[in-house]
Amino acid sequence: MIKKIEHIGIAVKDLKSAIEFYEKALGMKCYKIEEVESQKVKTAFFKVGETKIELLEGTEPESPIIKFINGKGEGIHHIAYLVDDVQNTLNDLKAKGLRLIDERPRKGTEGFNIAFVHPSSTGGVLIELCEETK
Amino acid sequence: MIKKIEHIGIAVKDLKSAIEFYEKALGMKCYKIEEVESQKVKTAFFKVGETKIELLEGTEPESPIIKFINGKGEGIHHIAYLVDDVQNTLNDLKAKGLRLIDERPRKGTEGFNIAFVHPSSTGGVLIELCEETK
Repeated sequence: MIKKIEHIGIAVKDLKSAIEFYEKALGMKCYKIEEVESQKVKTAFFKVGETKIELLEGTEPESPIIKFINGKGEGIHHIAYLVDDVQNTLNDLKAKGLRLIDERPRKGTEGFNIAFVHPSSTGGVLIELCEETK
Repeated sequence: MIKKIEHIGIAVKDLKSAIEFYEKALGMKCYKIEEVESQKVKTAFFKVGETKIELLEGTEPESPIIKFINGKGEGIHHIAYLVDDVQNTLNDLKAKGLRLIDERPRKGTEGFNIAFVHPSSTGGVLIELCEETK
């Protein structure tokens, strides 16, 4: 079912200074900045081996990222797993009693179809499921 | 400097039931359980592509994992990056102004030499550096 970790999402207050930190301190290279208006986030991506770091800055006060930072502070926000079929995986997880945030896949960053699973049913980990669409 | 994400550490209250969740709900396979007495943790490992999920349960009240859960709840605890040389990386990060938890590498799980960098200087992310010793 799970093929690999597609990315790790990290909530940041200021995308520009966070990109600078990842580039200058950790030696990574940002290859793309993308805004997802429906999610009220601006994102920056860094390749690390076969996976990625995704930095997320909220663009409006009601952005889930700003709410997360207000509650828990900046830090690791979610783990995204690459799967073959998001809808099948959602159906499977729902049948196993997990609480879904999205009942259907929707468009995410990088051309993926995505859906989130609620941390209340996964041991506190916000899980994103990603499916390639190309 | 960073070669890949070696693992993602996740703090759990009960290792046995967490292993069951990762196996039954997420379809992963635990390949090793290891106790690190010096860190007061019991760990369980799952391969996911080139990286791993490491579940961590604290074994004593003063375990960093139990303190973490008491403060923030169960969830993602740290990101571990594989590097060529932990000591060189520590020196580099210290020179760049980052706050180190460990000034020198020490023995971690899976035969790695490891060191931690404090989340107060990394945008809220507890970073582990890992170096292969074989």
